[in-house]
Amino acid sequence: MQCDVLTLFPELIEGIAAQSMLKRAQESGRVCIRSHNIRDYIKDRHRIADDAPYGGGCGMVMKAEPIFRAIDALQDEGQELRLIFPSPQGIPFSHQLAMDLSRESRRLVWICGHYEGIDERVLTRLEPEEISIGDYVLTGGELPAMVMIDAAARLVPGVVGDPGSVEQDSFADVLLDYPHYTRPEGVRGYGVPDVLLSGNHAAIRLWRRKESLRNTYWKRPDVLHDECLTEEDRRLLREISQECEQV
Amino acid sequence: MQCDVLTLFPELIEGIAAQSMLKRAQESGRVCIRSHNIRDYIKDRHRIADDAPYGGGCGMVMKAEPIFRAIDALQDEGQELRLIFPSPQGIPFSHQLAMDLSRESRRLVWICGHYEGIDERVLTRLEPEEISIGDYVLTGGELPAMVMIDAAARLVPGVVGDPGSVEQDSFADVLLDYPHYTRPEGVRGYGVPDVLLSGNHAAIRLWRRKESLRNTYWKRPDVLHDECLTEEDRRLLREISQECEQV
Repeated sequence: MQCDVLTLFPELIEGIAAQSMLKRAQESGRVCIRSHNIRDYIKDRHRIADDAPYGGGCGMVMKAEPIFRAIDALQDEGQELRLIFPSPQGIPFSHQLAMDLSRESRRLVWICGHYEGIDERVLTRLEPEEISIGDYVLTGGELPAMVMIDAAARLVPGVVGDPGSVEQDSFADVLLDYPHYTRPEGVRGYGVPDVLLSGNHAAIRLWRRKESLRNTYWKRPDVLHDECLTEEDRRLLREISQECEQV
Repeated sequence: MQCDVLTLFPELIEGIAAQSMLKRAQESGRVCIRSHNIRDYIKDRHRIADDAPYGGGCGMVMKAEPIFRAIDALQDEGQELRLIFPSPQGIPFSHQLAMDLSRESRRLVWICGHYEGIDERVLTRLEPEEISIGDYVLTGGELPAMVMIDAAARLVPGVVGDPGSVEQDSFADVLLDYPHYTRPEGVRGYGVPDVLLSGNHAAIRLWRRKESLRNTYWKRPDVLHDECLTEEDRRLLREISQECEQV
């Protein structure tokens, strides 16, 4: 998975990419993250990346030409590009889209906007995929780009040590996660559910499935689609709903 | 706006907080961001923050007690705390929630999970607000915490130089943004819409409103609620819909 991020804040990208899973993913050679300073592609000697908007109004707008030059330079490397523009106007980023990015053979290029916005001709000419990480506005495209890279990189085979831990995650199999407990057994008066200490693997599996279903039933009933549920799931859901009525 | 982030990766938080708008917001004294290394609250000399899950299975689970101690230390400072746990199981983060955080007088504390998850007793005892930035799974709570801090900090009065540029953003007034253009007039064969060069402010305002409506109509019809629209908006929307039919 090859990621290039065009930005006015390369240190922001490099700081995030140098930590934790993304650091290890790069060290193992499974993920490559490069940042490119858009200012390096500005010809005028003041290296000004933005200017006032045509038609007046507040805020500054990022110039188109430096971004075109940065893309030209990447295209000159010969590999096919898949362009992404993080924007609250885009299609919603999701687990499925993260999976799609993690399997992409083209070079993934994020174009990060800042200030009031970006010259519309960047979008008209390059037609990047506009992707939104959620219904809120951020200062720039850098955090959204790194959110997408993080979500996708951890799905690249071999990046997360134990592939089981990726599959058990929320959304990976549609259901939300079950509760986790670790040592010690007693923490400030709170214990661990008996079943997890029982050593009975079948009972533990069933408890975890039920708690996943319970979590999803309470917090995200919208993702509980009947066609994804087994006969056992449906029985557990009936138990959960009866337990609710008794409370 | 006072933000504290409990994390195993304080450099990640500090790297993001040291750039761009968040840097300026802190320099002006309007926003304070502190990161706290959870490892500093581990008593055993190996400073191990995680352990295997009770009941077996893959992944590691973050211990509860160091997090309790970190929260104790913050509570000892005397100010009331508002605890937030970034999680894909949480309520969706939104522009409204960012606005709410930007106005919070309590100290905002993000508890960042990592590894497989976090000992459930952290949630049972502290009852933090679980907030999700979107339907995807990330390696840790750090990026979501910084996404929430960025979205909220820019809404703190005085942080973004021109308050107008915040109000015009996507979602701030429900509608998506209109296209922006800046110099030069011609870029690789693409021009600027004539109206923006006309100097006719009324025409420019109307064009921008119509393009905002058009963007929203095409990309996010779900946020176009009739009760938020003016008579002029409804007329512009009729024009947009007629223009579609003619294509």
